[in-house]
Amino acid sequence: MELDELTISRAILASQTNVLINHLELDAAVVGGGPAGLTCAALIAGQGKKVGVIEKKLSVGGGMWGGGMMFPRIVVQEEARRLLDLFGIRYTPFESGYYVARSVEAVSKLTAAACDAGVEFFNLMSVEDVMIKADKRISGLVINWTAVEMGKLHVDPLVMGSRYTVDATGHDAVVARLVEKKGGDIRVKGEGFMWADRAETNILNHTKEIFPGLVVAGMAANAVAGESRMGPVFGGMFLSGERAAQIVLREMKA
Amino acid sequence: MELDELTISRAILASQTNVLINHLELDAAVVGGGPAGLTCAALIAGQGKKVGVIEKKLSVGGGMWGGGMMFPRIVVQEEARRLLDLFGIRYTPFESGYYVARSVEAVSKLTAAACDAGVEFFNLMSVEDVMIKADKRISGLVINWTAVEMGKLHVDPLVMGSRYTVDATGHDAVVARLVEKKGGDIRVKGEGFMWADRAETNILNHTKEIFPGLVVAGMAANAVAGESRMGPVFGGMFLSGERAAQIVLREMKA
Amino acid sequence: MELDELTISRAILASQTNVLINHLELDAAVVGGGPAGLTCAALIAGQGKKVGVIEKKLSVGGGMWGGGMMFPRIVVQEEARRLLDLFGIRYTPFESGYYVARSVEAVSKLTAAACDAGVEFFNLMSVEDVMIKADKRISGLVINWTAVEMGKLHVDPLVMGSRYTVDATGHDAVVARLVEKKGGDIRVKGEGFMWADRAETNILNHTKEIFPGLVVAGMAANAVAGESRMGPVFGGMFLSGERAAQIVLREMKA
Amino acid sequence: MELDELTISRAILASQTNVLINHLELDAAVVGGGPAGLTCAALIAGQGKKVGVIEKKLSVGGGMWGGGMMFPRIVVQEEARRLLDLFGIRYTPFESGYYVARSVEAVSKLTAAACDAGVEFFNLMSVEDVMIKADKRISGLVINWTAVEMGKLHVDPLVMGSRYTVDATGHDAVVARLVEKKGGDIRVKGEGFMWADRAETNILNHTKEIFPGLVVAGMAANAVAGESRMGPVFGGMFLSGERAAQIVLREMKA
Amino acid sequence: MELDELTISRAILASQTNVLINHLELDAAVVGGGPAGLTCAALIAGQGKKVGVIEKKLSVGGGMWGGGMMFPRIVVQEEARRLLDLFGIRYTPFESGYYVARSVEAVSKLTAAACDAGVEFFNLMSVEDVMIKADKRISGLVINWTAVEMGKLHVDPLVMGSRYTVDATGHDAVVARLVEKKGGDIRVKGEGFMWADRAETNILNHTKEIFPGLVVAGMAANAVAGESRMGPVFGGMFLSGERAAQIVLREMKA
Amino acid sequence: MELDELTISRAILASQTNVLINHLELDAAVVGGGPAGLTCAALIAGQGKKVGVIEKKLSVGGGMWGGGMMFPRIVVQEEARRLLDLFGIRYTPFESGYYVARSVEAVSKLTAAACDAGVEFFNLMSVEDVMIKADKRISGLVINWTAVEMGKLHVDPLVMGSRYTVDATGHDAVVARLVEKKGGDIRVKGEGFMWADRAETNILNHTKEIFPGLVVAGMAANAVAGESRMGPVFGGMFLSGERAAQIVLREMKA
Amino acid sequence: MELDELTISRAILASQTNVLINHLELDAAVVGGGPAGLTCAALIAGQGKKVGVIEKKLSVGGGMWGGGMMFPRIVVQEEARRLLDLFGIRYTPFESGYYVARSVEAVSKLTAAACDAGVEFFNLMSVEDVMIKADKRISGLVINWTAVEMGKLHVDPLVMGSRYTVDATGHDAVVARLVEKKGGDIRVKGEGFMWADRAETNILNHTKEIFPGLVVAGMAANAVAGESRMGPVFGGMFLSGERAAQIVLREMKA
Amino acid sequence: MELDELTISRAILASQTNVLINHLELDAAVVGGGPAGLTCAALIAGQGKKVGVIEKKLSVGGGMWGGGMMFPRIVVQEEARRLLDLFGIRYTPFESGYYVARSVEAVSKLTAAACDAGVEFFNLMSVEDVMIKADKRISGLVINWTAVEMGKLHVDPLVMGSRYTVDATGHDAVVARLVEKKGGDIRVKGEGFMWADRAETNILNHTKEIFPGLVVAGMAANAVAGESRMGPVFGGMFLSGERAAQIVLREMKA
Repeated sequence: MELDELTISRAILASQTNVLINHLELDAAVVGGGPAGLTCAALIAGQGKKVGVIEKKLSVGGGMWGGGMMFPRIVVQEEARRLLDLFGIRYTPFESGYYVARSVEAVSKLTAAACDAGVEFFNLMSVEDVMIKADKRISGLVINWTAVEMGKLHVDPLVMGSRYTVDATGHDAVVARLVEKKGGDIRVKGEGFMWADRAETNILNHTKEIFPGLVVAGMAANAVAGESRMGPVFGGMFLSGERAAQIVLREMKA
Repeated sequence: MELDELTISRAILASQTNVLINHLELDAAVVGGGPAGLTCAALIAGQGKKVGVIEKKLSVGGGMWGGGMMFPRIVVQEEARRLLDLFGIRYTPFESGYYVARSVEAVSKLTAAACDAGVEFFNLMSVEDVMIKADKRISGLVINWTAVEMGKLHVDPLVMGSRYTVDATGHDAVVARLVEKKGGDIRVKGEGFMWADRAETNILNHTKEIFPGLVVAGMAANAVAGESRMGPVFGGMFLSGERAAQIVLREMKA
Repeated sequence: MELDELTISRAILASQTNVLINHLELDAAVVGGGPAGLTCAALIAGQGKKVGVIEKKLSVGGGMWGGGMMFPRIVVQEEARRLLDLFGIRYTPFESGYYVARSVEAVSKLTAAACDAGVEFFNLMSVEDVMIKADKRISGLVINWTAVEMGKLHVDPLVMGSRYTVDATGHDAVVARLVEKKGGDIRVKGEGFMWADRAETNILNHTKEIFPGLVVAGMAANAVAGESRMGPVFGGMFLSGERAAQIVLREMKA
Repeated sequence: MELDELTISRAILASQTNVLINHLELDAAVVGGGPAGLTCAALIAGQGKKVGVIEKKLSVGGGMWGGGMMFPRIVVQEEARRLLDLFGIRYTPFESGYYVARSVEAVSKLTAAACDAGVEFFNLMSVEDVMIKADKRISGLVINWTAVEMGKLHVDPLVMGSRYTVDATGHDAVVARLVEKKGGDIRVKGEGFMWADRAETNILNHTKEIFPGLVVAGMAANAVAGESRMGPVFGGMFLSGERAAQIVLREMKA
Repeated sequence: MELDELTISRAILASQTNVLINHLELDAAVVGGGPAGLTCAALIAGQGKKVGVIEKKLSVGGGMWGGGMMFPRIVVQEEARRLLDLFGIRYTPFESGYYVARSVEAVSKLTAAACDAGVEFFNLMSVEDVMIKADKRISGLVINWTAVEMGKLHVDPLVMGSRYTVDATGHDAVVARLVEKKGGDIRVKGEGFMWADRAETNILNHTKEIFPGLVVAGMAANAVAGESRMGPVFGGMFLSGERAAQIVLREMKA
Repeated sequence: MELDELTISRAILASQTNVLINHLELDAAVVGGGPAGLTCAALIAGQGKKVGVIEKKLSVGGGMWGGGMMFPRIVVQEEARRLLDLFGIRYTPFESGYYVARSVEAVSKLTAAACDAGVEFFNLMSVEDVMIKADKRISGLVINWTAVEMGKLHVDPLVMGSRYTVDATGHDAVVARLVEKKGGDIRVKGEGFMWADRAETNILNHTKEIFPGLVVAGMAANAVAGESRMGPVFGGMFLSGERAAQIVLREMKA
Repeated sequence: MELDELTISRAILASQTNVLINHLELDAAVVGGGPAGLTCAALIAGQGKKVGVIEKKLSVGGGMWGGGMMFPRIVVQEEARRLLDLFGIRYTPFESGYYVARSVEAVSKLTAAACDAGVEFFNLMSVEDVMIKADKRISGLVINWTAVEMGKLHVDPLVMGSRYTVDATGHDAVVARLVEKKGGDIRVKGEGFMWADRAETNILNHTKEIFPGLVVAGMAANAVAGESRMGPVFGGMFLSGERAAQIVLREMKA
Repeated sequence: MELDELTISRAILASQTNVLINHLELDAAVVGGGPAGLTCAALIAGQGKKVGVIEKKLSVGGGMWGGGMMFPRIVVQEEARRLLDLFGIRYTPFESGYYVARSVEAVSKLTAAACDAGVEFFNLMSVEDVMIKADKRISGLVINWTAVEMGKLHVDPLVMGSRYTVDATGHDAVVARLVEKKGGDIRVKGEGFMWADRAETNILNHTKEIFPGLVVAGMAANAVAGESRMGPVFGGMFLSGERAAQIVLREMKA
């Protein structure tokens, strides 16, 4: 067999634009491919829903790759250990209730699980705005190539429809802030001082639908609520992603 | 259990600096965490060797995340299909002999396999130089935080010893060029024009030990040899990584 | 009728990716959408050939928009007046044999003519490399989004096949330089001093096939030949574009 | 005839500075050469008025060149099809009521029409401020080379008088914001969420004289009114440009 | 003895990470290694306390190196002469009550004194946030490599606990502003006009605990209080550092 | 006593410009205030010579502040321990023959010693060129504010005369390269691969007068000689500085 | 005579630092060397007062060099013609009451006149702050090298005393804004729309002492008052400079 | 009289474009408005020739404004004192044969003299290339707005004809390097080490016609010849400018 460059180009273009067109109407759009977003996307897609993760960077994983201060290890507490097991992420106990995992393994296993569940990834894409019509509900995302913004090009976006949107963009709470800035009745309070225990305890309460069609997860949930921050302990991230998935799935059934 | 921030910090610092000190003497140092490097690292570590991947960026995966022109799909040809199967990367046939996989899945599955094989990842670290002593052999890498270079800080590097070094840094062939520039008897010819079939056919011949202790793999192998380039078809990358692993393992036994 | 955003997105994606896939095999690829490239593309496409213009910027027109020193007027000499007439560009005589046209009109009329002739435009795309196989002939272009380079992203290119390539990239002679740099038997001498009369007289001789499958036109032709430069007189650009079209069309018949 | 460089320079300088001096008193100054501005300028000039388009970039066309997400296609709905026909822009039907045109053709045909109607283009010029005297009416624009700002040079502007000014600068609503910022009784509310149908329906209502002598058109009209945005559907842009022209022409008669 | 690179690497890694882990619980964390911070740290450590100086730059010394307008001389008034003597910094009298010292000597002698007193330096580290728990008291600092911010990397911080924190970060009053911004009951008024005499007189009053666990010293004290600034006279800096040390030591005993 | 701002300004200006004018004719100019330069300057000045250190940055200390990879510890081997003792730098033994010191203490103690020996520091000044007259000997340095280059200002330099110049600028070997570039008979070979033992052993041989009036010390000596590099072990730096001082002092007597 | 470089260096250092020290107590400090500042400084110094012009750039002249839109001509109206005559600036009449002068000549003649009157220039210096003591009066300027800010260096300023300060810094009204920002009872309203006649008429009323010790002149006067702007007509600048000089001289006598 | 903005704009545009068109054929084009260029231009124009100074920056004066190391004083030696007197630049003797002048006065007086002699200034314009035709002689300059390059705009230049061109662009020797780079038989050797006496003595020999139609003056003359440099002594600059004027005037007569 002799490889043909044009067949390769055609294969990529045809496959992916097909996927893109087929995903212009999503059951759930998860914005941000960090730990909370990946967990959430994997669990929703695992129930047979059509899920897309929109990630502005080239790679998913967010801030988890760097561990704490560039030492690529993360800590997970007892409460979330079952999720490490679920995704096949190995760990070693440190002190009672503290488990240490390799950050690179955590990202890759979580991403692999999302892939296996059927999630489609749209990386290098940014959310510029949201679609809100007469029903006052977020019904889609206004997306563009991240490179358009990086190159300061003047190019119009396209729209991707979604029944539910999960804002898992971390401290920035990108989608929530867009809604707030343009007059939606939301207030993004910003994350508070460091207090890991409180932050990890309360994050599940803050993981909720804050605007019709919009659920916040992970640090975005704490940032909206003005909750404390927690540093490189990731149990809350996984659990918040799981909770967001449960909310979206329950709503879809309703 | 109440989470304690200092315990979290201590857990990360203690675990990772322990790993770092334990890995100052590697069996194999793989520079660059793209497809060839990941494949190679996974297969060497799978034989019980102590392997470290040194990756200058926050995330591994190299150029594979972006597929072709930001359409996140890659093509793999028949010859390398068995490696997709080995790593559990799913694919769909396009035309006879061409298989299309999702780039995000390919990166994450490959990385997960490397983790499972016991590879340690040192991301956010760059190779500034190599250690060559009286035996005229590369016996270690001079490493530094990538952030030191990004911030234009004046900070000295440290040294990580390795019995074998694999340069899997892509087109740049970073290690090979360092050796060439400082007078080692190597010439990095640079990659040639696009000709996928030729590039994919010859890459296995170019995957070899080009300097005592230094094996080149992936696009770095073709760049050293002045071979053609191939675009977003990745079979040759996987196969070259496999070949590099075989060379290193054979040498270690010798 | 109620407008639907998803239909709009689908219309754009489906139409253009269809065009892109259909144009992976071109009769002629014209690189650079300045005056020479537009003229050339319009005339080739006018003969029923499949022609694509690859333009790295958002807009075509090159340096013609700015006239001379940001005064948006261009000069055309007697010999090329018939091409102004052909494209419907109006002008006023200045002194005997000199005609002054509005630069904005010149660009838009020329582009409109190319569109009417059936040329497809691929703007915001750059040529990274060329495809040269066993027949030692340029048989395609290695293309990528310009934004990928602007954003310093690490993303693989795709390939667009073409029977003939016209380098109309101006002073930079991008394609010719790529071929020269990678060892093709071409020398790009760079443009000489200002001498408008000589530059305009000789440009037609320099407009030719300089490498199998590669024709140079406009300032790229003069840059390859080390010929003089001419400033904001554009007759030679139009005539060189016309000549390049004639060469390509003649070769296609042969 | 032997070409003379100094004659060429003189031709350009003399022609354009003559035009510039002759256009220091305009009937209508259209700021911004995107789809709304071009349509508006073409239609006013078509009635024999002296019209200048002031465009800060090298090329006109605004965001239309890039289509949606760099796929150079635009969508136009049924209501505006007659304007495509008027300007000779070809299109293909997609679904009922949706027409797809090539963005490059749309820009070039629209610009060509404006040129044919007698519009003069002042590209590479920015509006720094407006002239408002005792009659509390915008009677001119304070202009400067865009390059002065890009090069951070300290250079004074000049003034161009105009009976009517049309702000067609898109989302930025540059002129309206200048008036607002310096205390004119205007409020620029900024564009709302994406809702194409509503945005396209209401834009004609928002296209109006918002300050004595100042008419807003295109996205600037919606931005002033706080109206929804619409993405890469351009019918409203053309229609708003037409409406702005009608308003200016009617006022001039009054 | 033959030097071994891996032993050198191991020596540095083992020593410093040991120090870092041992200093995760400090008696006093001094943020900013300028004249006030160095003085303060030296005097607290001199009483046998565990003190860390966190300095964002590569070198300590702050603005003192540059003297006044890059003339590397500083002025110290009579009141603080005894501290120059204490640290062994030599000086020459200028006019009555004014002493001139070399800025380089002042920095190095002060730093040497702090080292001799047992202070540990954590340079190239920035304070991103503070830890505040249920007792509403600053009990630790959220730190990261400065290079992470310089390289715009997305990497989580770690936490360093401290019984007392001294903000000696100069005009920026970094820690105080963090507390203010996130809702702590502090107001940083910013430094006032130049009035050296007043500034030097009042600085001791402004050197105090402004929030539970947080003492301000040096220009940070004046910036919080809205006090005048003083220019290159450094007596107040030394005295304020001394006062801050006294406050912390007295509190520790209490 | 009431502090007067103008007296402070006058004190600084008068003192330092006096020093600067008095040091326009130096016995020895040491370029670069890193470990080798500081050692060298301290030892020459200790013999009663007029010595100036010209340092381009705000602070002296060079790369020593950052230890190895931002872990602020340095290693010194047995041979150089007596210099640590001489300068009062404390250390702890690691393994036999290896001593670990704190980088911040090493810089400050060394600088303090240089100050005590009477060295004058001219920081924030760069060497643009050298003065070489009929005797073909470096007899002075062409200096300018570093800020002039940083701000890309066009400002002429001044000249500082020196009987001997020591290039202690590290890897860059700034003075040696200036001489080489302008045709002096020197070749700067650049530092070789990492081989600490060889580098530390040979540095004393490379510390010598390489051009009439120019002695190289520290890494600049190894860079000129094409010698290996050594990483964060600093014994050779101290010893090379000492040797350079001996050479200069011996020559002065001759 | 053989030229000696050290004598040249000494001559410059000794002369200028002498001047600087002698001018630490000025009668009048004029900030900004544009047309208003130069006129003002020349006229005050002409009365035997000690005047310094502090100019942040390398060259004086401000925005006058560039004329209007980089066409280096300025317009002066009848009322100010006598000042052109006074300074020896030649002009040609355009229409009745309008005179056109060359901008380069205007700057150089005005500057020459200031030099002849005894003004000292401190170029490349910026005003960072002002000195205000118990009498609530501006009694000096806090100055620094502009290059310190350009190079983002952390270096303390010095202080220059002045009985009167004239803010002639143009639109920015640098000194006035500093006073406003730090709580002085001033409001800088910013310049209004373009209305040359009104702006030129009112500028003399706005030229006044707006804070004890601070007189505003030129565009700074109009910016403080919220007055209209005037573009490249410079009569008002000259007249305002003259008026500011009269105010300062009158106050000094009082 | 009521000021009219449009009349002001018209006055500037009409006057300067008239001048520009009238100066498209110069007797002498002096490139670079530093001390040598200004002297040269003043003396040629003083003989009734049509002279234009092309200056890339906003202001003329070059590096003279900054004196030595930002101390705005220059030194002139005995030999050139008569030129200071000629231009009315005042000075004070320092040591025998050394005179110190204020740099600001030197620039302004010299510029004023050039204006009085009838020189026209074209500031903010750069020389991109030269015109050389069949007679192998520089017969004109290819010029563009400097802002075009600063803004990285793609805009064509215009041509200004000149019988003689003087390259007075300082160290860069811009015109000479352009000629060298494009194959003219010139070699620009670059300036040598600092040796003021030699540099000042030889500069007159190096001031000559180095290519048909091209005379070099000032530091450009020394840079072409590979001569020593001289620092902030300006006698040679003035004398070289005078010599260049003499050469051009003599040739014109021939």
